[in-house]
Amino acid sequence: MSRDDSSRRIVVGLVQMSMGDDVQANTSRAVELVRNAAEQGAQIICLPELFRSRYFCQTEDESCFDLAEPVPGPTTDVFAELAVELGCVIVASLFERRAAGIYHNTAAVLDAESGYLDKYRKMHIPDDPKYFEKFYFTPGDLGFRSFPTAFASIGVLICWDQWYPEAARLTALRGAELLLYPTAIGWHPDEKATHGDTQRDAWETVQRAHAIANGCFVVAVNRVGFEATPGESGGIEFWGSSFVAAPDGTVLARAPDDAEAVVIAELDLGQIAQSRIGWPFLRDRRIDAYDDIKRRYVDAADAEDRG
Amino acid sequence: MSRDDSSRRIVVGLVQMSMGDDVQANTSRAVELVRNAAEQGAQIICLPELFRSRYFCQTEDESCFDLAEPVPGPTTDVFAELAVELGCVIVASLFERRAAGIYHNTAAVLDAESGYLDKYRKMHIPDDPKYFEKFYFTPGDLGFRSFPTAFASIGVLICWDQWYPEAARLTALRGAELLLYPTAIGWHPDEKATHGDTQRDAWETVQRAHAIANGCFVVAVNRVGFEATPGESGGIEFWGSSFVAAPDGTVLARAPDDAEAVVIAELDLGQIAQSRIGWPFLRDRRIDAYDDIKRRYVDAADAEDRG
Repeated sequence: MSRDDSSRRIVVGLVQMSMGDDVQANTSRAVELVRNAAEQGAQIICLPELFRSRYFCQTEDESCFDLAEPVPGPTTDVFAELAVELGCVIVASLFERRAAGIYHNTAAVLDAESGYLDKYRKMHIPDDPKYFEKFYFTPGDLGFRSFPTAFASIGVLICWDQWYPEAARLTALRGAELLLYPTAIGWHPDEKATHGDTQRDAWETVQRAHAIANGCFVVAVNRVGFEATPGESGGIEFWGSSFVAAPDGTVLARAPDDAEAVVIAELDLGQIAQSRIGWPFLRDRRIDAYDDIKRRYVDAADAEDRG
Repeated sequence: MSRDDSSRRIVVGLVQMSMGDDVQANTSRAVELVRNAAEQGAQIICLPELFRSRYFCQTEDESCFDLAEPVPGPTTDVFAELAVELGCVIVASLFERRAAGIYHNTAAVLDAESGYLDKYRKMHIPDDPKYFEKFYFTPGDLGFRSFPTAFASIGVLICWDQWYPEAARLTALRGAELLLYPTAIGWHPDEKATHGDTQRDAWETVQRAHAIANGCFVVAVNRVGFEATPGESGGIEFWGSSFVAAPDGTVLARAPDDAEAVVIAELDLGQIAQSRIGWPFLRDRRIDAYDDIKRRYVDAADAEDRG
């Protein structure tokens, strides 16, 4: 069967990396790995969450706000130039300083021809032991977005967003053909033996389900390696395992859980229309009956009133 | 750590069955298998979708409307009495005749003490080759619901609903501790070799993701066995594989793909609070930013206006 975009093939590059204390060295390393991915043919290249530094949210430390910068700003300048030079799209996750007292966890999209294109500000902000993001990041206010890049319409979401079907749905409804998730997720070392496999499997499963439910590709790009908690025992063992899922949920490529990797995958964008015709979920959504998605919870008394 | 409901354990029973041409024989067989499940300790027992007959939606045949009956009605009378006798909850999927020209795909909940409790009408109606449900069923108009039964608050959704994260979310937000999905899904014989494993894996994955994203249990109960299409070649090979998933996404029990089975699983409802504290997704939902869930699609021009 022939489809409009049956011949649109693109190549994505997932840069799974480890970060040290030196911001300049991390940035240079990211540039090097992006070049490596581009040399292997990648057209859309995604870096992990907050790749310029250690994952500073392990503690609440006011001095870490010094890591923030405007977006667009000095780092997007570097990657915009690189994107144009290499003729590729780059997704760069950054700590954005918007104004005194307003900081965001932001991903910039650098396009192959025009350089800096636009940005997404992380909408869902976690707060868990060693993931104190609510201290640093104001929740995003740009909504869920799809960016028309040189090679595909891409949606960018960030880490904690990946647990929310609403985020994937809203981004897909804006035309995103692939959802890219820069990520920083790992094991607490004392939980790894008991819950490690289950946690990582849940993380992959919920994102594969976004691909299936929305008939689009999903690309998750994680950090890898252990980062100790400053001034405390323990830390986070980032579990890598970056992957690409197709619209039917199959995993097309997966990185190891214990080493840096540049993963290259070719995506046949024709699979999107094919998947959505075979499994026409978008056709049958009951948009007349989804009002309560906008409620925190439907308490028992309310349910009775409305039942 | 102690939780309010850390000690609430319940036992579910999944009746995976095959159906023949004789409605009365199918009903008797369903009663027998419910008894079998109850004898094994099941407190909440779920039957497959439309268990009283062959899956008649393989063709569009006006005479099949004769299979419909009121809900509550004669079949719920049988299962209500059985539920009270056995002291268990039964979820029975039926073809509901509501009025001349208005028919629904409906699941009745029969409670252990009071018998007939309430019903859910399938909200998402498929229409695919050999699944011509839009011919038979008016889309449900009772919304997404949670039913307070003797053993747990249960949400009931039906088959095609299982592909919709909105359905799972809305049901969980109304307090459902487990989502039960009576189902009739299978392979087109000519697709099985190429796509069979992927299709079934996607079906399980998307439902496991509902358990993870909502921190609740998921119980899917499918038909099993081949049913030929009347008057045509081919048919559907219902793939069984009924399963129970825990809030962390692990599969607690799974039936075979080629034989009837009564699957019994004990659920520790304390895992719900535990899961939702460890992975507090419900806390961080951006209910201020989900408006567009109620749109069919956000067309490019609209996106620009609103961007």
